[in-house]
Amino acid sequence: MSALDEGHFNAELENGVKLNCLGLGIQDQPETVAIADAVKVLLQGLGEDINREGLKKTPLRVAKALREGTKGYKQRVKEIVQGALFPEVGLDDAVGQAGGAGGLVIVRDLDLFSYCESCLLPFQVKCQIGYVPSGQRVVGLSKLSRVADVFAKRLQDPQRLADEICSALHHGIMPAGVAVVLQCLHIQFPNIESLFLDSNHQGWVKAVVHSGSGVFENELADVWGDFLSLLKFRGINLDKTQMKDSVQQCWCPSRYSSSAKVIGPPNRGMVTAVTSILSSLGEDPLRKELVGTPSRFVKWLMNFQSPNLEMKLNGVACGRMDPLKQNGQVSHNKQQIYTELCLSFWSQCEHHLLPFYGVVHIGYYCAEETTPLSKSLLQSIVHFYGFKLQVQERLTRQIAETVSSLLGGDVMVVVEAKHTCMISRGIEKYGSSTATIAVLGRFSTDPAARAMFLKNIPNPASGGS
Amino acid sequence: MSALDEGHFNAELENGVKLNCLGLGIQDQPETVAIADAVKVLLQGLGEDINREGLKKTPLRVAKALREGTKGYKQRVKEIVQGALFPEVGLDDAVGQAGGAGGLVIVRDLDLFSYCESCLLPFQVKCQIGYVPSGQRVVGLSKLSRVADVFAKRLQDPQRLADEICSALHHGIMPAGVAVVLQCLHIQFPNIESLFLDSNHQGWVKAVVHSGSGVFENELADVWGDFLSLLKFRGINLDKTQMKDSVQQCWCPSRYSSSAKVIGPPNRGMVTAVTSILSSLGEDPLRKELVGTPSRFVKWLMNFQSPNLEMKLNGVACGRMDPLKQNGQVSHNKQQIYTELCLSFWSQCEHHLLPFYGVVHIGYYCAEETTPLSKSLLQSIVHFYGFKLQVQERLTRQIAETVSSLLGGDVMVVVEAKHTCMISRGIEKYGSSTATIAVLGRFSTDPAARAMFLKNIPNPASGGS
Repeated sequence: MSALDEGHFNAELENGVKLNCLGLGIQDQPETVAIADAVKVLLQGLGEDINREGLKKTPLRVAKALREGTKGYKQRVKEIVQGALFPEVGLDDAVGQAGGAGGLVIVRDLDLFSYCESCLLPFQVKCQIGYVPSGQRVVGLSKLSRVADVFAKRLQDPQRLADEICSALHHGIMPAGVAVVLQCLHIQFPNIESLFLDSNHQGWVKAVVHSGSGVFENELADVWGDFLSLLKFRGINLDKTQMKDSVQQCWCPSRYSSSAKVIGPPNRGMVTAVTSILSSLGEDPLRKELVGTPSRFVKWLMNFQSPNLEMKLNGVACGRMDPLKQNGQVSHNKQQIYTELCLSFWSQCEHHLLPFYGVVHIGYYCAEETTPLSKSLLQSIVHFYGFKLQVQERLTRQIAETVSSLLGGDVMVVVEAKHTCMISRGIEKYGSSTATIAVLGRFSTDPAARAMFLKNIPNPASGGS
Repeated sequence: MSALDEGHFNAELENGVKLNCLGLGIQDQPETVAIADAVKVLLQGLGEDINREGLKKTPLRVAKALREGTKGYKQRVKEIVQGALFPEVGLDDAVGQAGGAGGLVIVRDLDLFSYCESCLLPFQVKCQIGYVPSGQRVVGLSKLSRVADVFAKRLQDPQRLADEICSALHHGIMPAGVAVVLQCLHIQFPNIESLFLDSNHQGWVKAVVHSGSGVFENELADVWGDFLSLLKFRGINLDKTQMKDSVQQCWCPSRYSSSAKVIGPPNRGMVTAVTSILSSLGEDPLRKELVGTPSRFVKWLMNFQSPNLEMKLNGVACGRMDPLKQNGQVSHNKQQIYTELCLSFWSQCEHHLLPFYGVVHIGYYCAEETTPLSKSLLQSIVHFYGFKLQVQERLTRQIAETVSSLLGGDVMVVVEAKHTCMISRGIEKYGSSTATIAVLGRFSTDPAARAMFLKNIPNPASGGS
């Protein structure tokens, strides 16, 4: 089945309709084809073979995901809302506020994904919306979510996203006021250099932003208090001054990371390719906030160029410590399982050019005469295989094989990951996570050994996010 | 804007493509129109005015949601999977299992929704899938989710759903084996009678089912142990015999509820209408499991016939106790706020004919000469307004007005709800919840009074589910 066939059936699935008509499916539209061509340039810039089996369909897949993820540019809020305004009586003003006249309505904990305009990586949004109905009418609750999604599905930064949702709902519904609070989470990829030095790398940048119109325009208005009281219980408990401060200057990590010296100036062809992607998405690459985006994206992408890393691992592996000196003891039990749990990893899905990340658990048997591996060596092995275009199954196998080659045998590796491609694209399975297992030697034949290792793996509260 | 216009723009939004071509949008297809006509019969059977503003577009909206929710009938698994099989090397069998040969792959916590074939209400599914790759190839991770959704988007029961997902993946991927575990949650609406008697009504029926093929076919196989070990941490920790027992005989509450005596035999026209809906969805109404479905659905729907309830509330309200006798004390503080928190409610969204449910919090001031209202009276008021075709904003206002009419004044009501229509339809915002506020008298003018009440509202662990 060709790439186009796959595209066709995906579109059918995702859209719930067949596109067997005169209109072109998303995969055949000229913008999609142009993006796919640009992605080929990026893959070649990474030194990849674009005809390699795992990468053959990647350009089209990335192009479709990007266009799907930015479809908000083509959506019109007014028409979403207008069809779903319902007459609903309120109360006499002298008596109180309720229903279609003054009763606060809040939709909480809408999970959204948006694309960072600074680096083109998706960021996660927990969206809280409140509005005060006016004019004896209310809007269908799901429309608040749909309108928020129109603006999330664009290249954004958190404050603009909040402002645009707020303003669009205000003009669409014409209520007494709209309040929007967004809790945003941006993945912060370590750069290769810092990764091997800083074991306390923080994987996420958080920002809480808000926007208000009408009765919410004044941040000191009491109605903000009512709204926040009912959000408090969902993990937000900020007074208004705190909220104002939390609008961070340093939101996107790509704006303040400094891996330039290592990787060198960005490949000009790749930068041009990303610029053309911005145009194909309907954006103006000269818009002030987007001017540096192509270089930043390319700089980040170059983290996954394999040759960079061969060198690094060799360096670290040479520095392998003698475990006898390191911890002063060797197991006296030939059968003992050594475990190293929750080694963090960061990788890039080769099917979608989107991050996946999580933890790696390694278990192995050590013979009496061998010494256990240091945590830093195991972590280096994990990073080495992470910083490539990858699939989780391969990453798991490669880590297991490498550890096995150092120890000669009985190794088990479990990788637990969250895949951005499972969240930010069509299927949007926010809570999902993936686990893969590799078993070598004794672990492949002894269920009790596997069970002993598996029972030590902790329950990650949030699977890495 | 006409109903068709709204449909058009919704389709554009949900599908990400315009349907301005020869193919018919979902809202114009004859099956959709037929379902919409049947829904009109149901609304009329409930004694509703189908031209009432809030209901005018309900038939089309329900029809679209049902067809969207059962689109799995038209999807072909083989084509989803075939385009996403990737070559991936494994290990020599003598060495171990990993990658494309034997390394267990697990996708966890996929949130799905399906429709119960016994009663046509949506039920919630947390889906866990594992498979053991074979033949040096793996499948794109998102395809496991897509395939599961193909079968979830049909009329189902939990065990068949698990079996169909398992079998389809086995034939599509040709792996060494597939394991599926589903945690299913079915809403259990109280019937009106029991509601007023049984304050400990359990709102949910839970079932855990599983299905295995190939190396998972034998439930005692060790690979089940590996799989379950990595699920344990997500709230499942069942040994295999327990799992077997949990396949409940009594899954759908409509099969064992007995409200028939109250409501009488189902309206024949309504039953015929539901039968025609089943046909329009592509199902065979004579399929054994579906034969009783139309009557059960109609019987359930009749819970929301208003006249039933007028009578009930009158009955209960007449029985209002003298609070002096009830609790033996009256507040000595004229300014004291009385609160009754977390009164459960069950209602039916008039826009989608789908349940919404949650808790109601009521706060009020009592003058010294008045006595506070009993919890059972407040709960009756809540049920009275819940058991109708409703919108949350109106429910909130009506409860506030009724309490106010009994006490003469200062009342605040907060309703916190989960809306099935926000979850089971296109927008699929699983974690979202909605809060609405009504304020009367002093609460409408005194922010401090509102704040005092709001700070008492507890953080519901799961918003009612």
